[in-house]
Amino acid sequence: MTLSIVATDAADQPARTPELEALYRGFEAELLVPLWTEIGDLMPPSPRSKARPHLWRWNALLPMAERAGELVPVGRGGERRAIALANPGLGGRPFATPTLWAAIQYLNPGEDAPVHRHTQNAFRFVVEGEGVWTVVDGDPVAMRRGDFLPQAGWHWHGHHNVSDRPMAWIDGLDIPFQYFAESTFFELGPDEVETRDAPERSRSERLWGHPGLRPLTHLEPAPATPLLAYRWEHTDRALSEQLALEADGHRATVEPGHAAVRYTNPTTGGDVMPTLRTEFHRLAPGTATAPSRDVGSSVYQVFDGTGQVTVGDHGWTVERGDLFVVPSWQPMALATEHGLDLFRFSDTPIFERLHQHRAHADRP
Amino acid sequence: MTLSIVATDAADQPARTPELEALYRGFEAELLVPLWTEIGDLMPPSPRSKARPHLWRWNALLPMAERAGELVPVGRGGERRAIALANPGLGGRPFATPTLWAAIQYLNPGEDAPVHRHTQNAFRFVVEGEGVWTVVDGDPVAMRRGDFLPQAGWHWHGHHNVSDRPMAWIDGLDIPFQYFAESTFFELGPDEVETRDAPERSRSERLWGHPGLRPLTHLEPAPATPLLAYRWEHTDRALSEQLALEADGHRATVEPGHAAVRYTNPTTGGDVMPTLRTEFHRLAPGTATAPSRDVGSSVYQVFDGTGQVTVGDHGWTVERGDLFVVPSWQPMALATEHGLDLFRFSDTPIFERLHQHRAHADRP
Amino acid sequence: MTLSIVATDAADQPARTPELEALYRGFEAELLVPLWTEIGDLMPPSPRSKARPHLWRWNALLPMAERAGELVPVGRGGERRAIALANPGLGGRPFATPTLWAAIQYLNPGEDAPVHRHTQNAFRFVVEGEGVWTVVDGDPVAMRRGDFLPQAGWHWHGHHNVSDRPMAWIDGLDIPFQYFAESTFFELGPDEVETRDAPERSRSERLWGHPGLRPLTHLEPAPATPLLAYRWEHTDRALSEQLALEADGHRATVEPGHAAVRYTNPTTGGDVMPTLRTEFHRLAPGTATAPSRDVGSSVYQVFDGTGQVTVGDHGWTVERGDLFVVPSWQPMALATEHGLDLFRFSDTPIFERLHQHRAHADRP
Amino acid sequence: MTLSIVATDAADQPARTPELEALYRGFEAELLVPLWTEIGDLMPPSPRSKARPHLWRWNALLPMAERAGELVPVGRGGERRAIALANPGLGGRPFATPTLWAAIQYLNPGEDAPVHRHTQNAFRFVVEGEGVWTVVDGDPVAMRRGDFLPQAGWHWHGHHNVSDRPMAWIDGLDIPFQYFAESTFFELGPDEVETRDAPERSRSERLWGHPGLRPLTHLEPAPATPLLAYRWEHTDRALSEQLALEADGHRATVEPGHAAVRYTNPTTGGDVMPTLRTEFHRLAPGTATAPSRDVGSSVYQVFDGTGQVTVGDHGWTVERGDLFVVPSWQPMALATEHGLDLFRFSDTPIFERLHQHRAHADRP
Repeated sequence: MTLSIVATDAADQPARTPELEALYRGFEAELLVPLWTEIGDLMPPSPRSKARPHLWRWNALLPMAERAGELVPVGRGGERRAIALANPGLGGRPFATPTLWAAIQYLNPGEDAPVHRHTQNAFRFVVEGEGVWTVVDGDPVAMRRGDFLPQAGWHWHGHHNVSDRPMAWIDGLDIPFQYFAESTFFELGPDEVETRDAPERSRSERLWGHPGLRPLTHLEPAPATPLLAYRWEHTDRALSEQLALEADGHRATVEPGHAAVRYTNPTTGGDVMPTLRTEFHRLAPGTATAPSRDVGSSVYQVFDGTGQVTVGDHGWTVERGDLFVVPSWQPMALATEHGLDLFRFSDTPIFERLHQHRAHADRP
Repeated sequence: MTLSIVATDAADQPARTPELEALYRGFEAELLVPLWTEIGDLMPPSPRSKARPHLWRWNALLPMAERAGELVPVGRGGERRAIALANPGLGGRPFATPTLWAAIQYLNPGEDAPVHRHTQNAFRFVVEGEGVWTVVDGDPVAMRRGDFLPQAGWHWHGHHNVSDRPMAWIDGLDIPFQYFAESTFFELGPDEVETRDAPERSRSERLWGHPGLRPLTHLEPAPATPLLAYRWEHTDRALSEQLALEADGHRATVEPGHAAVRYTNPTTGGDVMPTLRTEFHRLAPGTATAPSRDVGSSVYQVFDGTGQVTVGDHGWTVERGDLFVVPSWQPMALATEHGLDLFRFSDTPIFERLHQHRAHADRP
Repeated sequence: MTLSIVATDAADQPARTPELEALYRGFEAELLVPLWTEIGDLMPPSPRSKARPHLWRWNALLPMAERAGELVPVGRGGERRAIALANPGLGGRPFATPTLWAAIQYLNPGEDAPVHRHTQNAFRFVVEGEGVWTVVDGDPVAMRRGDFLPQAGWHWHGHHNVSDRPMAWIDGLDIPFQYFAESTFFELGPDEVETRDAPERSRSERLWGHPGLRPLTHLEPAPATPLLAYRWEHTDRALSEQLALEADGHRATVEPGHAAVRYTNPTTGGDVMPTLRTEFHRLAPGTATAPSRDVGSSVYQVFDGTGQVTVGDHGWTVERGDLFVVPSWQPMALATEHGLDLFRFSDTPIFERLHQHRAHADRP
Repeated sequence: MTLSIVATDAADQPARTPELEALYRGFEAELLVPLWTEIGDLMPPSPRSKARPHLWRWNALLPMAERAGELVPVGRGGERRAIALANPGLGGRPFATPTLWAAIQYLNPGEDAPVHRHTQNAFRFVVEGEGVWTVVDGDPVAMRRGDFLPQAGWHWHGHHNVSDRPMAWIDGLDIPFQYFAESTFFELGPDEVETRDAPERSRSERLWGHPGLRPLTHLEPAPATPLLAYRWEHTDRALSEQLALEADGHRATVEPGHAAVRYTNPTTGGDVMPTLRTEFHRLAPGTATAPSRDVGSSVYQVFDGTGQVTVGDHGWTVERGDLFVVPSWQPMALATEHGLDLFRFSDTPIFERLHQHRAHADRP
């Protein structure tokens, strides 16, 4: 380790006399660092994220995944053919934000991604395609466009592609958070998934997918959702109804033209997983959102439509499949001429549970 | 008030000497009662309910309601054409159990039950018929066979029958509980419901009736469910899936052949209302449940099928619409040759929230 | 059972035609009661307690207890030499309010009150005297003037008087609530307490009686407090400090001159027991409280000083040991010329946990 | 940013063909990183902390602080004369562990550390000395040997030394956690503390420092403790009583000879702050603890006595004032011949609240 006190001799720093230099060398020898040289970096007036607003284009990302599908086998060891977004502010690490991992995963026809489990919370979101089943604790769960598939920590899971076409989707996890916090456990399972069954509906959905109804066999609150698939038909309908209710004069949207649902754990009504919040947002044609910002970071993927995104001093026109990140406390706004559907995930539950969350919106 | 100490001179009572009699008269004068004469009644080894197991036949109940429909107007003052079950052990009060109210309500074509609100938690369950809309805070909610419609305390509500046929249904409330506990508030609203709209789906269902999805406009836990109708199609499907999963070898039923769901508050995963638990049970043909009992009381209504019910030392063969009560700590069992569907409501949340609940089942 | 529909032919009742009379007789035969004849009693605009405001004088109560000490043995069967307040509105039952039991208990030198346990939550409060130890699950707890001793449901307990003088104290329980709710279990233990030890401090206090400190052996939230004695020295000091802080210009009192503490469960910060709230109030000389009322009922005992109490349309001048009840939703106010110390217990947690609580105070 | 995929061509990596190299260069251009090259570092079988077990000697630390007292002024800008432990595994950052900050702070007679507030949760622990008052939201809190002073995020605070001697103490914060999570807000207050008062007891203690008693003015659960000082006399007594109870044959200690208390929030019974757990441990002479480990990291300071500490493959003999860190999932054990008192703080609440906590002890 090289520990070196290099704070500039700024106005609020003591003069670098030989005595002070000697003291600083003593600090280094004893593995000590003074607060007064570091406080500007450690304790800024408001969050100054190292992560930067950034956009990854789907039409750049998907060909990379396809090429990896040709060159890189999937199997034990590497575990997944997943390619992660590396935020340009985070030193080349595969971290979309300081807490969140986002990757495109790709599976060829007939391939298995081997079974394992880990403490990281995970989910899949499908922007296009179908044909892969994720087998969770032996329960095969179909993946189709628009589906959201949560995958709470420490459950066995693998994927297999039963179709004759490759499939790609997005994986979201709290890998960076657990990496810094040092809470990761990981365990290998079988090299192939336990079952080749490919049912329309998983056992999980058959038990849990009925609005407001709970099986009497499972009555305790669970830390993460037992519902393993949130199907597009439900999400789409919920958003359409919000906009229809708004059109009828009822309060149903976040702001005019802006419908949104949160995916929740039916055993608690709270977030699907302890560290991850997931939502789907729909902007009606001609909608512009009020700028807002909050503590913690988000990743968005455009599901459909086109629009303009502003994050801090960055701005992009986005379309299907594009992914962008919103760092902590960066103001963010959306606008669309023809309509825009967006999937979002964030680390907000971490901050809410630790009483560190703040949010601000310019909505009237 | 006449206060009179009349405990028998049982083995564990002090001899009734003149001095003791004088003391007892002194107690009465000062509005005092000794524990030692009352403890046997007040503190039994286990709950000894004053309520009795009892069955009300739908084919006796419904004609009474129809006759009331001819003779008794519905309107301001009487408020509802509702006829309540009066447990034979509860002194002629309209109490199905010490805590629960159950009544048949009846509304003729074109009639309005006027708008009011009260702190009592309520619900409707429909064993047959349709044509009435309940308007809750201005939101019209259709009522159809198999539907469960919760109605949390202190929300404005009225009913109107838009069809050309009368309709009857069951009202369940915590009236007796709040009567003893003395927490009742009541307020009158308009004489007629606010809207004659009769939509297929209420606004509440359009906002809340999507499995695992929550509108971003309503993110706080609510003490009672915001979903105003739990439709039969969902309940029926959930029960069918449990039995199908069981047939495939998966754990999904309470016990062999016994499927059951609890209606829950999507904002918490808990009971629909703070004082009332509501469930639907389905017994496959040839099923017999293990005897069980718990603290608190229940009312069941047969929704479909036939079966044998045993409650304490009572037993009945039941069929569609029949209602029966299970008093606190009375053992209860069900059996059916051809299949049996049952709606149940109970006061269990009271006991769970106050750490007074106990349950026992003879299941292996 | 005689069930008889006797509602007067009031303006809002249907005319009592022969047909209606026949229907009412039919209701009676089928154990049914219409809502429209009962609604005025069942659903009043605000709580109309059957209990009445009432005062029991300590100087009447204590001699009765002393006389019982001469005439009535304490032992197995009667279990306790306890004499309960019977509210004049509650039909001669030993119920201070519809939910609360309050009794004076009396133990002669050398006597044992035998060991038992019950689901009722209980406590003791000592207005004068000392010399009795309550043994809770084998832990002997001293009782002295000003001490509050909670006793959560289903713990073994007995009392023994190790002194050469009789001792009287107040028992508070949720007996009426559990009686109506039918949740009572009761079990007999040994005829004599397990230990004759009479330590200054109980094991419970030695483990739990340190402000803000919790033993690492007990880290789960407990439904009721594990601290078995709240000593007068702490209560007195907390109240004195509130008044001193107020005098120094800091917010510390409920209203000017009115200090108050709530006894709490150190594992949750909430009420000491799931059904009972307990508090101590001190009015500085010259203080008058703002009238207030809330849902649920209370019992107060004057600990020291004198004052004027107003409850509904009743008013009394009170002094040491006097007990009075405040029924649900009755306005209540206190005033004192020379200072007044009061112990209070109530059923408020029942209503708070069931979302039935309302309160109103006229404080500015 | 330089992003460079450098995973070795290990057995589980695909062969580095020219095509694969080209793909990897493409990843770099698009700010992408594959999982399969990183998984070994990101997802180890169990936590592999970057932090190392390390010991800082009080007799090295204190002279450094004294010298800083001579050379470095305290005031606006630098804010505090605090010198932080820099874990040798964490790249020279002033982080004791990946989540925890620990520093020695030093204040000369008459000095003020200026008023500010920040979202970081903080506390002070005093291993020796006295004379400084911390003024929290205007409430002056004395600091004395053995006292623990929590300081929840976003409260104004400053320090002033009213004595004629310098004073040093330990500051603990969650600075590294909030730095990585990017949730920091910071605001400057006055340059001098609001009051020169130096009372024995703070207002906070006068309101909250009574075991099991809560002022009626503050009845809601608070995210952090309102009690601003946990005095040594209470901690010492609680620990002594645990050992005395154990000697009498009662369960009161974590393991034989090992007494321990947790500092708790009296409004919830939980940890004093949302991110920080704080405890005090006492080992009786001749005690050796069972090895244990858990997810998350700790910092210990020896308060009194001497002993042997083992953390992972490190071992030290420790004495008064020495500080050592226990990284995530490192086994740790203590032993003492003559007795050992230890203050401990950790980040465990973070993991418990996010359902990431695991612990293992070899206790029988």
